[in-house]
Amino acid sequence: MNRWKLSYDKFDPEEESLREALCTLGNGYFGTRGASPETSASKVHYPGTYIAGVYNTLPTEVSGKTIYNEDFVNCPNWLLFNYRIDDGPWFNRLKVKILSWKMVLNMRKGMLSRRLRWQDQEGRITLVENHRIVSMAHPHCGAMTFSITPENYSGTITIRSGIDGSVINAGVERYKQLNSKHLEPVSLGEFGEDGIFLQKITNQSKIQITEAMRTLIFKGDEKIKTKLNVISHGRQKIVQEFSLKVKKGQKHTVEKLVSIYTSRDHGVADDCAMAKDAVSLIENFDSLYQPHKAKWKALWKRFDIELKGDDFVQQVLRLHAFHLLQTASTYNEDIDAGMPARGLHGEAYRGHIFWDEIYVFPFFNLHAPEITRALLMYRYRRLGAAKEYAQQNGYCGAMYPWQSASTGSETTQIIHLNPMSGKWGDDYSCLQRHVSIAIAYNVWTYYYTSNDRGFLDRYGAEMMLEIAQFWSSAAKLNKKTGRYEIAKVMGPDEYHEHTPGQTGGGLNNNAYTNVMVCWVLEKALFIVDNLMIEEERNALLLKIGVREGDLSLWRDIITKMTVIMDKNDIIHQFEGYMDLKELDWDEYKRKYENISRMDRILKAEGDTPDHYKLAKQADVLMLFYVLNYKELSEIFKRLGYPFSKSIMKKNFEYYYCRTSHGSTLSMVVHAYVAELLGYKDLSKDFLVAALESDIYDTQGGTTQEGIHSGVMGGTLDLFLRTFAGLEISEDRICLNPNFPKEWKSIKFSVRYKNIWFSVSLTHKNLTVLAQPVRTASLQKTTEILIEINKEAHKILPGKTHTVAL
Amino acid sequence: MNRWKLSYDKFDPEEESLREALCTLGNGYFGTRGASPETSASKVHYPGTYIAGVYNTLPTEVSGKTIYNEDFVNCPNWLLFNYRIDDGPWFNRLKVKILSWKMVLNMRKGMLSRRLRWQDQEGRITLVENHRIVSMAHPHCGAMTFSITPENYSGTITIRSGIDGSVINAGVERYKQLNSKHLEPVSLGEFGEDGIFLQKITNQSKIQITEAMRTLIFKGDEKIKTKLNVISHGRQKIVQEFSLKVKKGQKHTVEKLVSIYTSRDHGVADDCAMAKDAVSLIENFDSLYQPHKAKWKALWKRFDIELKGDDFVQQVLRLHAFHLLQTASTYNEDIDAGMPARGLHGEAYRGHIFWDEIYVFPFFNLHAPEITRALLMYRYRRLGAAKEYAQQNGYCGAMYPWQSASTGSETTQIIHLNPMSGKWGDDYSCLQRHVSIAIAYNVWTYYYTSNDRGFLDRYGAEMMLEIAQFWSSAAKLNKKTGRYEIAKVMGPDEYHEHTPGQTGGGLNNNAYTNVMVCWVLEKALFIVDNLMIEEERNALLLKIGVREGDLSLWRDIITKMTVIMDKNDIIHQFEGYMDLKELDWDEYKRKYENISRMDRILKAEGDTPDHYKLAKQADVLMLFYVLNYKELSEIFKRLGYPFSKSIMKKNFEYYYCRTSHGSTLSMVVHAYVAELLGYKDLSKDFLVAALESDIYDTQGGTTQEGIHSGVMGGTLDLFLRTFAGLEISEDRICLNPNFPKEWKSIKFSVRYKNIWFSVSLTHKNLTVLAQPVRTASLQKTTEILIEINKEAHKILPGKTHTVAL
Repeated sequence: MNRWKLSYDKFDPEEESLREALCTLGNGYFGTRGASPETSASKVHYPGTYIAGVYNTLPTEVSGKTIYNEDFVNCPNWLLFNYRIDDGPWFNRLKVKILSWKMVLNMRKGMLSRRLRWQDQEGRITLVENHRIVSMAHPHCGAMTFSITPENYSGTITIRSGIDGSVINAGVERYKQLNSKHLEPVSLGEFGEDGIFLQKITNQSKIQITEAMRTLIFKGDEKIKTKLNVISHGRQKIVQEFSLKVKKGQKHTVEKLVSIYTSRDHGVADDCAMAKDAVSLIENFDSLYQPHKAKWKALWKRFDIELKGDDFVQQVLRLHAFHLLQTASTYNEDIDAGMPARGLHGEAYRGHIFWDEIYVFPFFNLHAPEITRALLMYRYRRLGAAKEYAQQNGYCGAMYPWQSASTGSETTQIIHLNPMSGKWGDDYSCLQRHVSIAIAYNVWTYYYTSNDRGFLDRYGAEMMLEIAQFWSSAAKLNKKTGRYEIAKVMGPDEYHEHTPGQTGGGLNNNAYTNVMVCWVLEKALFIVDNLMIEEERNALLLKIGVREGDLSLWRDIITKMTVIMDKNDIIHQFEGYMDLKELDWDEYKRKYENISRMDRILKAEGDTPDHYKLAKQADVLMLFYVLNYKELSEIFKRLGYPFSKSIMKKNFEYYYCRTSHGSTLSMVVHAYVAELLGYKDLSKDFLVAALESDIYDTQGGTTQEGIHSGVMGGTLDLFLRTFAGLEISEDRICLNPNFPKEWKSIKFSVRYKNIWFSVSLTHKNLTVLAQPVRTASLQKTTEILIEINKEAHKILPGKTHTVAL
Repeated sequence: MNRWKLSYDKFDPEEESLREALCTLGNGYFGTRGASPETSASKVHYPGTYIAGVYNTLPTEVSGKTIYNEDFVNCPNWLLFNYRIDDGPWFNRLKVKILSWKMVLNMRKGMLSRRLRWQDQEGRITLVENHRIVSMAHPHCGAMTFSITPENYSGTITIRSGIDGSVINAGVERYKQLNSKHLEPVSLGEFGEDGIFLQKITNQSKIQITEAMRTLIFKGDEKIKTKLNVISHGRQKIVQEFSLKVKKGQKHTVEKLVSIYTSRDHGVADDCAMAKDAVSLIENFDSLYQPHKAKWKALWKRFDIELKGDDFVQQVLRLHAFHLLQTASTYNEDIDAGMPARGLHGEAYRGHIFWDEIYVFPFFNLHAPEITRALLMYRYRRLGAAKEYAQQNGYCGAMYPWQSASTGSETTQIIHLNPMSGKWGDDYSCLQRHVSIAIAYNVWTYYYTSNDRGFLDRYGAEMMLEIAQFWSSAAKLNKKTGRYEIAKVMGPDEYHEHTPGQTGGGLNNNAYTNVMVCWVLEKALFIVDNLMIEEERNALLLKIGVREGDLSLWRDIITKMTVIMDKNDIIHQFEGYMDLKELDWDEYKRKYENISRMDRILKAEGDTPDHYKLAKQADVLMLFYVLNYKELSEIFKRLGYPFSKSIMKKNFEYYYCRTSHGSTLSMVVHAYVAELLGYKDLSKDFLVAALESDIYDTQGGTTQEGIHSGVMGGTLDLFLRTFAGLEISEDRICLNPNFPKEWKSIKFSVRYKNIWFSVSLTHKNLTVLAQPVRTASLQKTTEILIEINKEAHKILPGKTHTVAL
């Protein structure tokens, strides 16, 4: 197994859409699934190119209601390519004899390659080789090469290559009842000697998208000229058709260069002119490939985690870092897009932004904090919508929506389809108000890790204060108990939508929410009290409308929030949780192959998970994942509740056996918390399960609709935190490595407050090299404090420091 | 004279358009000229609201050629407001008796106020008071109040208030032959209880613009309800008409709240919905005004220069800082706009971006470097266009256009109108390739001052290397001299378009260009050789296509560039300069009142400045302004030319008396260089002349078409550099104060490499307080090095340090 490559050598149409998602190439601006070019010649219009931030909304009548689905747009297919030998049929991979087939995603180089030998009914054997990139150096460009060698014949090969705009959103089975035609034609045509273009517009959001393409043809290494017949199919599709006289054993290569621009890109007055200009400046595939490869090399220098001793873990860690960088990159600094929960890899969740960022950003913070900053700007720009959403729901401040797309309005479905029952049911998931907690947490941890004070001053503080204001308006004093309570919300565990017997959605006093609200308010107060200069503070408080009385209320809430704990020290997931029934887990495991989605099972049986002590994913335990022991102790102490490691253990043991892990994020949390509390084997098992989830599609059919950004980011962060024992505190990084015996060594680099730390670990030694980012700073770094296994070390910049373990 | 206010108390229609420009309000997102609301009821459609970065291109046939003018769009007029008493005529300021009139721009609060008492033919006296803001806290919002008190009558006052979309670009007389209708209607209507909106679209660039407005009415302090009749005039204009029963001595106030959004704004899927939502959230004028005022207070805390002892200089320094912040602010971080040479204040130069940034950025760098960064991103996004422009002209790398608007293509006119002769002539000004030098210089000084390494790595280095590549392709080795030469360019002095007898435009070996190219190449080499890690360096060089051979060429050029100097140590402005005739200055001074624009005078006489030793503005001397003595000495030394203070003096004396200062920028440069070389009185005279240029419109009619950003930024920077003696070096700031005896004291703050230095100067003492920007840095600042009058001082952060002078 080559740990830099993801290889497949068996052609299996059943596996195709999973492979397509896993072999997506992208650069943060756009992503294209790893489909064979020839799929586009079939009737399946599902090649999958997604441009970050491009959405469109369509209405559909479902079950008597009008649903407005705001979708990530599946853009024109630039892969369209097919060929035929002499007068034979157009190549169709399902109708020929495949002699050999190999597909390789080279993650180091960011290239997808395929090698295919096939035989037609007349015994003609053809070797086809493809390479494809989505440029990491030129965000608007991609390219592919297509080489054909007739092994045992000579003749004429006719090729059709072009752009297909007749795509619809058809990647997710359960969305098929909904309208899915998002694109209307604008223009198409030829340009220059070898170019064609297709311009479309999203029919509601009115975003113009142009793809411009050029075709270069080589006989061996020599560039040749061939007449390109341009054929357009209505206004939806444009192709170049041309014929090559081929001789036995002789290779011809077609290079297809593409450029993609939209009318929303900066500095673009005419996306069509821009796309044509940009593709015209590309010399050939190699001239695009070389800087792309070099850029990936530079990215891996920062991002790679090298693990010796476990090829699977090694390979999947790289796959996860690779996919995160496809979905979000420094190019996000100049576009307006969030981190979609399913990447730029498919249409699942419609490309919406949820709370998954909380799992992804820690990894970006430690390697390229500018990416987190760019993605947080997506949130800042939608602060107005969040304020309006709060107001509509009777709150103050800013309440971010559970699902968000272009405008920052709530885009969570109000009814959803249960694929097991085929029925549409109410959807209360928008009551997961904790997304606003995640955003405040992300702002703070970005600032804390990167040292970017400018962001905090101009954007972050405003977001945190608006969110604090929202939560303080949601918390109501219960005069009987003298404590504040938060009603009608859902925690991260989506199985519990309300307590039995209640109408409407929402739970009271969700422990995760209530504790985290204390954290948010305390951080907001810290900013107001300690960080801002007086004039800026006054301007901000006046802008938001926070008065001294509000600040007093915040100070009161953090000492009097309700957390329901019983005499056994179990923190109740929410009020009323202990009145629920226990589930007969063994019974359900017997009855169903996979019980991770117990919600669908129970609902299809006419029951509901609301009746049971049962969680889809970590909820109380999530607290132990996002906050450290010191933070939790302080919050509980201030509230007058007991807290200790032993309480954490009791809660872990209680909830661990009542969780079905219906979300892959649950495994990440459990892996971290298990290690923290001393359940080491469990920890590695959960890590491996989390790593398996996308590469093997262990949830059965979800990865093909798009990878899971949350679990990808979560596993990378988890790996560093759990096994390398990386922890950050205000003035240092701490390393307490602790990894399985069977692993030999770990190497990685992290950037903390503008210093790069390169760490090498074996079971015997820890080596660390600290290098401040070279700046024109007035202050020269003399020595740097770090902590290794609880012991402080002062190290010199640029000098290797080794400690025996 | 109140130095925070610009006051006018004489109503003078002749002065109106100058006052309008000087009293513009803006926030970096949009600016609105200081017109009286009632102008909009007259036939003059020139209220002047400009949104940063909103351009539109129209073709016109002029003099047998089709000219495409890309214009800054004069957007719908949200000030539209008029009233009448009973059945009397609508108020017309030219037809009534003005009893008293006062207009005050309060720069501290960012508010424009007017107080007007007038009497109609029937003797009725009315007091009208206005206040207006363009919010610095909410970039998409503005508001005005309009109070009416009948002093000696009772009756009915009917008011019309609305938005007028029938504006055209009509602010610049000499553009009037050109097409000027940029806006087409999209929609208009009412919303909510008190709202109306108007949506337009630019007819070529297809940018939708919506202005949404609400009207609140108060009798005294009490909000009242009145029926608002909505009247639309075609699809261009929408007004609310309503009547108030007024009693003698009783005040009614109308508040007009407005919100502006375009389809290019981030997070906006529907600019119309967004504008309506935003304005609906505003409670009233005061709720918008309070945070606005607080934000201006926070801005002044950073930006103000306090000068005691010279009210005029004090006032105009504030006016200049005020206007720069209106045109560019931190809001530019989230929009795509450059720094227009004439601000957001008028249509002159069509809102284009030239090289004026080089005068403006130093001031932003020292106070809010994030603004420079945002404006440099405008350049980075147009690197592709600059590369294409270079290629079209046979060069490599990136050649930025002399004038630039939305796409980064060259937007310099190819013919232009001489207002003195009324004739159209060829325009070679696009040959001012030195704009690319300014951009490289701005990138480097931004990095150097702010310490923003991330910007350099991701954007700045690429720009600098592309520009270096361009200049190295423009420099040709002259085998005879063994030196490199640059042909066919123009220097900053626009009077010289070519040497007499030559066809086409451009000069050879312009000294400013050639010397600065050496500076650019050296800095580019420094980045490649010293700053970047290997992987990043390789990726960047491959992306740009710079090879080792190119780097060798750069190294060669910086030792062998041509600078033409004669035996008297005069640096020739360009090759052939010394063959030109001397101008009879006295003769022209006798003949014309103002000879600053000698080009127009000579051309109207059938002659041309090309024949004379005559400069519009500093060209050779510009070198002494942008580079310090050490840098210049090193460049000249490496090239094998002599250089010394005495050579600088000789050149100053030579060029000083041959310059007409046809550009206000020339005064800034001369003021700085004069002080540097010991001509102190001259220095203050030039400062005062530069300060007078906009406030008194000393160029005669140009300020009313838009202020001059370059001179505004230049005077502020000049003031600190010359009179406070502020200089920055790699590891410290230096202060060598030297200001006129008649000035009492100077106070200012600057931010250098993340430390704020607050400086207080008298003739006796210098006090400085250094405060590092509070971050979560790993490194604690212990002591800070500064230099005062050539002596090094170590000071403690947060502790005042005083030195007797």
